[in-house]
Amino acid sequence: MARLTLEITMSLDGFVAGPNQTLEQPLGEGGERLHEWAYGLAAWREPHGLSGGETNSDSELVEEQLRRTGAVVMGRRMFSGGHGPWEDDPNADGWWGDDPPFHVPVFILTHHPRETVVKQGGTTFTFVTDGIESALEQARTAAGDKDVQLSGGADVVQQYLKAGLIDELHIHVAPLLLGAGVRLFDDLGTGPIGLQPTSVREGRSVVHLGFARASA
Amino acid sequence: MARLTLEITMSLDGFVAGPNQTLEQPLGEGGERLHEWAYGLAAWREPHGLSGGETNSDSELVEEQLRRTGAVVMGRRMFSGGHGPWEDDPNADGWWGDDPPFHVPVFILTHHPRETVVKQGGTTFTFVTDGIESALEQARTAAGDKDVQLSGGADVVQQYLKAGLIDELHIHVAPLLLGAGVRLFDDLGTGPIGLQPTSVREGRSVVHLGFARASA
Repeated sequence: MARLTLEITMSLDGFVAGPNQTLEQPLGEGGERLHEWAYGLAAWREPHGLSGGETNSDSELVEEQLRRTGAVVMGRRMFSGGHGPWEDDPNADGWWGDDPPFHVPVFILTHHPRETVVKQGGTTFTFVTDGIESALEQARTAAGDKDVQLSGGADVVQQYLKAGLIDELHIHVAPLLLGAGVRLFDDLGTGPIGLQPTSVREGRSVVHLGFARASA
Repeated sequence: MARLTLEITMSLDGFVAGPNQTLEQPLGEGGERLHEWAYGLAAWREPHGLSGGETNSDSELVEEQLRRTGAVVMGRRMFSGGHGPWEDDPNADGWWGDDPPFHVPVFILTHHPRETVVKQGGTTFTFVTDGIESALEQARTAAGDKDVQLSGGADVVQQYLKAGLIDELHIHVAPLLLGAGVRLFDDLGTGPIGLQPTSVREGRSVVHLGFARASA
């Protein structure tokens, strides 16, 4: 069965977006700095329709991740561009453009039913209103023998984590203290969750940490 | 001049202690699990007056840290055993015993003046009431050509961080989501602080991350 793998970039102080998100700045103040490690990579630029870029150990890691990914699950805020009054706009999808960088089926958790949107380049946006387990099941079917990637936002990650449904966590730690914003791990409301380190890779200006759930 | 180096173990979700600290459980619920990577190491056991233990890459790192450290700065809560009604007890020092594991001069930030306490094995506890810069200055003088280690708690780390006084951060990331407790990086109330990764070392069940302040 396809594994559910979290892929997310977090500041050393635990934030996946800065404060004061807007449609123009969906990652919040300072949030763009989280992803600086990726913007210059050929492996990041190519799926975003950009030419050029570097090839190094970071880009190899991104390539591996893209090869492994057969479907994506994300929350409606990540889909619609951050947290704000626009997040419930039933027609919002301008954030990802006509040729989104996913190139696989994407399943979006939302409370608002909507027809599937077919984009260029293999990306489809399917809106799931009956919960995280249904979204995961649909994504697993779409992924076949590849992995399902959980992309965020933080609230959706927390829901899957609490439900014990995440098989691997790939956290890209940006060398940055944002000081404020959206915390990846917040309000878990659980006892301690033990993890098993699976990989540590030093990037150019990022540290890639991999964890699996520890066996009980 | 002696560098100020933070040495601290943090859960992947950013906590340095669990919730509900008591004198019997100064690291809070689940907090002991943060330090499991260290308890079995010869290099941790020896300064704590315990025999035996393992020698591996983690213990080499602890030995390096001990060799580098000429003085320690900590907060009164770390000195007195966590956050609770006992933290203002002017006579509390039972937590660290007669032969504390530091074996160097320790400077404790507090609002309560008190005579210096001389313990066995080279540890002295000096109480500093005139602020973080004074404590650092006194610790630097005591450390000579070695480093000053900042040990915690979180509130004291945040004060030094905001003042721009920490030269290196050595964060030992425990593979654990505590879900609640005392956050290392909280309420910084600053804009983003850029860091420069200096080392990444994979331990047996811990990841050692080193950062320096990024040049402005």
